[in-house]
Amino acid sequence: MRDVFVAGVGVHPFGKFFDRSLKDLGRTAIMAAVADSGLELKDIQVAYCGNAVGGLILGQESVRGQTVFLNAGISQIPVTNVENACASGATAFREAWLSVASGLYDVAIALGVEKLFCNDTPKTMAAIATAADTEIVSDTGWSFPTWYALNARMYMEKYDVTQTQFAKVVVKNTKNGALNPHAQFHTPRTVEEVLNSREISYPLTLYMCSAIGDGAGAAVLCSKKYAEKHAPKPRVRVAASALVSAGFRNDPKPPTVDGSAGQRAAQAAYAQAGIGPKDLDVIELHDAFAPAELQGYEELGLCADGEGKILIDEGRTEISGDIPVNPSGGLASKGHPVGATGLAQIAELVWHLRGEAGQRQVPGKNPRRGPIWGLAHNGGGTMEGDAASMAVHILKRE
Amino acid sequence: MRDVFVAGVGVHPFGKFFDRSLKDLGRTAIMAAVADSGLELKDIQVAYCGNAVGGLILGQESVRGQTVFLNAGISQIPVTNVENACASGATAFREAWLSVASGLYDVAIALGVEKLFCNDTPKTMAAIATAADTEIVSDTGWSFPTWYALNARMYMEKYDVTQTQFAKVVVKNTKNGALNPHAQFHTPRTVEEVLNSREISYPLTLYMCSAIGDGAGAAVLCSKKYAEKHAPKPRVRVAASALVSAGFRNDPKPPTVDGSAGQRAAQAAYAQAGIGPKDLDVIELHDAFAPAELQGYEELGLCADGEGKILIDEGRTEISGDIPVNPSGGLASKGHPVGATGLAQIAELVWHLRGEAGQRQVPGKNPRRGPIWGLAHNGGGTMEGDAASMAVHILKRE
Repeated sequence: MRDVFVAGVGVHPFGKFFDRSLKDLGRTAIMAAVADSGLELKDIQVAYCGNAVGGLILGQESVRGQTVFLNAGISQIPVTNVENACASGATAFREAWLSVASGLYDVAIALGVEKLFCNDTPKTMAAIATAADTEIVSDTGWSFPTWYALNARMYMEKYDVTQTQFAKVVVKNTKNGALNPHAQFHTPRTVEEVLNSREISYPLTLYMCSAIGDGAGAAVLCSKKYAEKHAPKPRVRVAASALVSAGFRNDPKPPTVDGSAGQRAAQAAYAQAGIGPKDLDVIELHDAFAPAELQGYEELGLCADGEGKILIDEGRTEISGDIPVNPSGGLASKGHPVGATGLAQIAELVWHLRGEAGQRQVPGKNPRRGPIWGLAHNGGGTMEGDAASMAVHILKRE
Repeated sequence: MRDVFVAGVGVHPFGKFFDRSLKDLGRTAIMAAVADSGLELKDIQVAYCGNAVGGLILGQESVRGQTVFLNAGISQIPVTNVENACASGATAFREAWLSVASGLYDVAIALGVEKLFCNDTPKTMAAIATAADTEIVSDTGWSFPTWYALNARMYMEKYDVTQTQFAKVVVKNTKNGALNPHAQFHTPRTVEEVLNSREISYPLTLYMCSAIGDGAGAAVLCSKKYAEKHAPKPRVRVAASALVSAGFRNDPKPPTVDGSAGQRAAQAAYAQAGIGPKDLDVIELHDAFAPAELQGYEELGLCADGEGKILIDEGRTEISGDIPVNPSGGLASKGHPVGATGLAQIAELVWHLRGEAGQRQVPGKNPRRGPIWGLAHNGGGTMEGDAASMAVHILKRE
C-alpha cells in the first residue's frame, strides 16, 4: 500500500439550486478540485462517483457518474458509481484512495454529488427513506426523523441528557456555518430559537434536523511520488480509511456506542493512522440530527459514554476549543445533499490542514505549528439499530 | 499489487422467479460461492455488491448490498454498492479484486444481483433505459433495442453482414445454453426460428434480443498466500482487470471498433495479462443483442474489423471451435439480469478453467492440458455512440 495525498479539493456550495442539474453541480466541484490540485483534467486516470438517490429523484440510474464526468470533459477512463446512502461521498473517496494506494493508478478523482430539491418533497422523503431496509420499514410509518427521535429519547433517559444540550450543538454549528460561504444557511441560532422552532418529533425540533440540499464535493488524490513532482499545494496525506457496516443488534437496548458502527470505524481508523482521539486537531462529524453529534463524540472516543453533553456544555468542540468539531457548520448549516456530504467534509478538513479555512480556521492543538490531524465521520443509512454504513477517514498534514 | 485468486464462485440460476426477493437471489449465490471456496462466511473481510436498477424496480436504493449481505449472515465488514449499468457485476468483481490486490484485505466477496421481473414491464423497460444519459435520450423515443438495431444496420451496410449471420450467433448460443442448468432458456433455436421470430426492430428479431431475468452471481477472491493456505480448489488467478468508459464519438459514423470502449478495455487487459487474443481458450461475451457478439469478436481482436461474420460462419466460436465464445449460452440463453451478468460470466470461466463445466466444457487449445486462459467481456449502458462502461477481465488457471 502506497501513501496517497489529497492534491486538491473543491465543492459546489450546498443549497437550493432549481436551475442547476446534477451535471452542473458535479462539474463545478470537479473543476474546482482539479484547479486546486494544479493538475489538468487529462492527468486523471480513474474516477469514482458517489450519489445516493439520483435514480429515484432525477430518473438517472445506472450511469450517473459517466454522465457527470463526461459533461465535465473527463472521458474514456474507468468510472465507477458507488452508493452507500449518506456515506456515498466518503465511499467514493475511499475507493479512489484504494485505487492509488494499490499502485494501480497515480491520479484519481472522487466526486460526491446530489440533487434533492425537485419541487416534490414527498418524492425526496421517500427516496431518502431507502437508506434503510425498505422490506422491513416500508409499512411501519418509519422515517429517519422518528428513528433519530426515538434513539435520542433513549439516550436522554440513559445518560440524563437534556433537549437544551442538543440545542447547544445547533448553536455551535450555526455559529460556525455563518462563516462558511459554502453552507446553505448563514444565520446563527440561539438556544431559545432552536428549542422554539417547530417540533418535528420530540426531542427533535426543526433546527436540530439537517435540511435537504443540492451540492457537490470533489477531491483529487495522487501517489506520493506524483504529488511531489506535480502537485503544488502543501501536502495532505490520507492516514486512514475505514468503512464498516451494521452488525446484528436486534435487542432494543437503549443506545450505547459499544460495538456501534461508528465506534468500530473510528477504532479501525485510529489503528491505521497510529494515533488516538487526543491527537486530533479538527473533526467533521455527521450531525444529520443534533443528538447524533453528542453520540458521535462518544463513538469517536473524544469522551466516555454519556459524556458528550459535557463537551458541548464546556465549549470544548467550538472552533476555539481544544477539539473543534464541525467548523464548517456541519450538516446543521450546510444541509445534507446526501452523496455530497462526505466529500464536503474532506474538502473542509483539507482547507483547515492547509490553513486556508479563512474566518473559521481552527488553530490546532499547537497553534505555532497549526493543525496536523483531521478526521471525517460520515454515516449512511440505518439497519439493525445501527448505521448501515459508516466511514471514518483521517487526514494528516505532512 | 498482489496476485489475487478466485477461490470460489456461485450463481442463483437466471430466470423468472416471482417468489424470490433480491435477498433470496443474492443469498443463494453468496452461499454457493462461499461453499465452493471452502471458506466460511466469517472469513470474508470486505464485500462489494453490483446491482443496476433495484432502486427503480424494487424501491430499495442506497443500501442494497447491506440488506442482501446482512440477510446472508455477513455483517459489520465494509460493504460497498457499485453500479455501472449492465457492467455492474464486473465492476463489483473489479473492486473486490483491487481490495485484495492492494494488500488491504485477504478475502473479498463480489456479488452481482438483479431482479427485473415485477409484473410491470414498462417499469422494467424504463429502468433499463436509465443506462443511457436520460437528459439526452428521454424524449426521443430511444430504447436499447432501437439503438442496437440502428447500430446493426450500419454494421451490416459497412461490412456486408447479413441478418442470417446474426441469427447464427443465436443458434450457437442457444445450443450451448441447452447444456447450462443455470440458463433461463434451454431450447436450441434454428436459423429459421430466429429469423421468423417476432421482429423487434429490423434487423433484430425477438430471439436476437436478450431477455430480462432475475438472478445472481458471486465470487470469493483471496490473496495468493491465503489461497495456498485455505482454498482447496485448483487456483484461478485474476490476470487482468480493465474498465473503461465512453469517449467522445459525436460523429454519426458507421460503427467501427477502432477506439471503441470494448477495444480499449481489451487492449488494456491483454497488456496487463501479457497475452494476446490468440492465447485465449474460452470467452464469455456480452451478447445483449446478437450483432454485438460479432462486433465483440472484433473489439477483442479475435479477427479484423468486419470479419466477425467469418468466425460465426466457420463455427470457430463453437464449444468445439478454436476459440469458444459463450459456452454458457450467453445472454441469449441466460437472459440478462443486468447487475448479475458480469459475475455469472466469471463463474462460467472459473468452471471451464477448472474442468467443471460438465457437458458444455471447452477442451482448451491444447486439450491435453485443458483451458488456461479465459476472458469475460461485460458492457454497460451506452453514451456517445459507445459503451458507457466496459469491463474486460482475464482469468488464468495456474
